[in-house]
Amino acid sequence: MKSKAIFYHAGCPVCVEAEQNVALALDSDRFNLEVVHLGEQKSRISEADKSGVKSVPALLLDNKVFHINFGAALNDLK
Amino acid sequence: MKSKAIFYHAGCPVCVEAEQNVALALDSDRFNLEVVHLGEQKSRISEADKSGVKSVPALLLDNKVFHINFGAALNDLK
Repeated sequence: MKSKAIFYHAGCPVCVEAEQNVALALDSDRFNLEVVHLGEQKSRISEADKSGVKSVPALLLDNKVFHINFGAALNDLK
Repeated sequence: MKSKAIFYHAGCPVCVEAEQNVALALDSDRFNLEVVHLGEQKSRISEADKSGVKSVPALLLDNKVFHINFGAALNDLK
């Protein structure tokens, strides 16, 4: 069974770079990657918040949050 | 041809978590992953510095630096 990976971003240049390089480098045989644009899907912000996401871009793997560089604070997307 | 990925760390808990979850999630069909412990390989610190690594853990993909969470500042490893 594949693990779930969620990449949260906000469309910022730092986000795009992290998506194209890190998120898309994940092994698709082992991970189902979901890409969530929190600027366009504001209803997902509370879910990201509960998962521990403090800023974007962030990658959620196995319920662990990995903040990758810094694009924007989650609070600034609310 | 595979791309080169370098994961720089210092053995800290934040580093280990990022290695086990993010670095090891990379697609090994597309990336040759090298793991560098900067506490044990201090001769590699200047190379990391030149690549733009400011803190560990950090992942270098296609000459771009992705700082993943925060374990320790590179300057504190010198």
